[in-house]
Amino acid sequence: MNTSIINETHRYFAPQLNMPPRLLLGPGPSNAHPRVLQAIAMPQVGHLDPAFIGVMNDIQEMLRYAWQTHNTFTLPVSGTGSAAMEAAIANLVEPGDVVLIGVIGYFGERLVEMASRYGADVRMMAKPWGDVFTLEELHAGITAHQPALLALVHAETSTGALQPLDGVGQVCHAANCLLLVDTVTSLGTTPIFLDTWEVDAAYACSQKGLSCPPGASPLTLGERALAKLHNRASKVPNWYLDMSILSNYWDGKTRSYHHTAPINSMYAVREGLRLVVEEGLAERWARHQANAELLWEGLADMGLSCHVTDPAHRIPALTTVCVPEGVDARDTAVRLLNEYNIEIAGGFSQLAGKVWRIGLMGFNSRPENVALLLTALKQVLDR
Amino acid sequence: MNTSIINETHRYFAPQLNMPPRLLLGPGPSNAHPRVLQAIAMPQVGHLDPAFIGVMNDIQEMLRYAWQTHNTFTLPVSGTGSAAMEAAIANLVEPGDVVLIGVIGYFGERLVEMASRYGADVRMMAKPWGDVFTLEELHAGITAHQPALLALVHAETSTGALQPLDGVGQVCHAANCLLLVDTVTSLGTTPIFLDTWEVDAAYACSQKGLSCPPGASPLTLGERALAKLHNRASKVPNWYLDMSILSNYWDGKTRSYHHTAPINSMYAVREGLRLVVEEGLAERWARHQANAELLWEGLADMGLSCHVTDPAHRIPALTTVCVPEGVDARDTAVRLLNEYNIEIAGGFSQLAGKVWRIGLMGFNSRPENVALLLTALKQVLDR
Repeated sequence: MNTSIINETHRYFAPQLNMPPRLLLGPGPSNAHPRVLQAIAMPQVGHLDPAFIGVMNDIQEMLRYAWQTHNTFTLPVSGTGSAAMEAAIANLVEPGDVVLIGVIGYFGERLVEMASRYGADVRMMAKPWGDVFTLEELHAGITAHQPALLALVHAETSTGALQPLDGVGQVCHAANCLLLVDTVTSLGTTPIFLDTWEVDAAYACSQKGLSCPPGASPLTLGERALAKLHNRASKVPNWYLDMSILSNYWDGKTRSYHHTAPINSMYAVREGLRLVVEEGLAERWARHQANAELLWEGLADMGLSCHVTDPAHRIPALTTVCVPEGVDARDTAVRLLNEYNIEIAGGFSQLAGKVWRIGLMGFNSRPENVALLLTALKQVLDR
Repeated sequence: MNTSIINETHRYFAPQLNMPPRLLLGPGPSNAHPRVLQAIAMPQVGHLDPAFIGVMNDIQEMLRYAWQTHNTFTLPVSGTGSAAMEAAIANLVEPGDVVLIGVIGYFGERLVEMASRYGADVRMMAKPWGDVFTLEELHAGITAHQPALLALVHAETSTGALQPLDGVGQVCHAANCLLLVDTVTSLGTTPIFLDTWEVDAAYACSQKGLSCPPGASPLTLGERALAKLHNRASKVPNWYLDMSILSNYWDGKTRSYHHTAPINSMYAVREGLRLVVEEGLAERWARHQANAELLWEGLADMGLSCHVTDPAHRIPALTTVCVPEGVDARDTAVRLLNEYNIEIAGGFSQLAGKVWRIGLMGFNSRPENVALLLTALKQVLDR
């Protein structure tokens, strides 16, 4: 080997990793729980090791609890939340399918973009950012468009609005339509009853309500969704996210190799789910609601109002706060980051410059974080 | 909230994570370096945090060194190695494109499958598993098929064969054809000179030569590949892996949000690359070669032979060993795992039952691992 031709131009001696101690109170990621960070650093085993298969089984079962579903097909996709969203669309949409998407914010718009790329005949229902659909509106949309699939975002992270889902699945199924729900910000933070609501497919992420680093993202498919997948006329046009073949790795019997799983991210998800199971869903949901109400009261005391006016339609894990007249939204966020190591986010698109987005998710949903955030925000706004 | 309807069926109280201390000497993952495991457990910052943007810059620059390329577009994709492979195909293939794939093993077959799903007019050249193509054969294939893209696997992990690449890019470019190379098992282990070889696009993984957990996978695109991407007639039919929009997050100027990056996996990749930079490529490649030769000598002393007969065509990081007549390949691997906590793999498809696959990758390429593996293998075969 002639090593004299090695080019040293890009041989950059980077210093030791040294990250600032951020408190992540934006729309996600939230801080990982310390036990999750211990878990992710465990030395890995192979992705076909019997010990790893035990990890996979544990994750699947605890995910069913978190989502309140009996779905056998319940697993984390090997990517961040957008990969799980793409997996849902890639597997359940065939070219020409009428797909109705209820757009209440950015993530609905992304569903439109993705479904279009997979050749769907996309129909859109839209609401101003901050609003949600009534059951009657959704019913009317289904009647008008007769879609094969209705896609909704449960907790719209771009607006802070929580879409009620009670009864939607029943309306869909009466019209022979599948219901797909984005639970990226609601899983582990907000009441979800996938089976009771007759949701056919849902996806989420790891870095919000589950208090994990981003990297492995839950997906669940019920019987109707699986029937759609197995009766496709064409292959899923996405090999990495083809659940018809990946299911042979996760199904508990064949465990045949598809792609190398992100093993340590799976350790993390397992630990995040253990924390959900230990706390219990009722207690966890109540904690998120209580800390959200603490935040809302504190904001009101400072004369600040929430963008979503009806508290019943607010996401407990993510609050959009109206930026007062004359205040530079971005400047406030930059100062919170630089002076207090606190990350919050601004709004974008319809809400650019108009709101801040404050997250209290999973491990971060604690009274001390509310107290600190309110104090820091007040100090920044007062100066 | 009516929490009385919470179903406790799947509330499984999993025990604390407790994984066996495996030595991973299979085709990957290999064990992560201890410094990488420290890095992955660092508390995360947001994916738009200025501190994270520094991490991204560091990774990009060190990846250019590892691959020996000046390509500006050099970054880790948010998934495991197969996601990087899919990203390469999804972005560089348009429906109807003639894509020539040199198949010397399973990963070439997977390229055929992926390119087909993206609508390519796929042409295949195939060799028995263990062989490689000569430059003349590749030249003849290009002349015969006039492809828009030639895809080759540099280090075919299913067979142990190393495809020589010197001169291939020049032949491709004379025929106005792009060259895509799979370097999943060669990056960080085997001499690679992407720019000298005129490779237009390449991808890799984190869990082999870079000694990281799987989860973020390098991809690089040169000027010709970027021109192909930017002149597409249709959108990339894969939103998550659309490099034309993701590049706005990585380009150093706009940093606009596309999807949440797997932050801790990026910490890990950065640390894995620091180890490459500190050691130096010449030293690292020599170390892999030396430990591979130690293994080959030890195997020969035991009367075992390598499936790839010409040592110059063997992958230093992954050796395929012929299973002696009368020995059950799978039983040997199971006993190494159960009795010695050592993972090696068997062969599959054309090589099922015929070979073992032994990896010495990154951190794991050390003389003590060779000594232990040889001793353990001898003991298992002798009993």
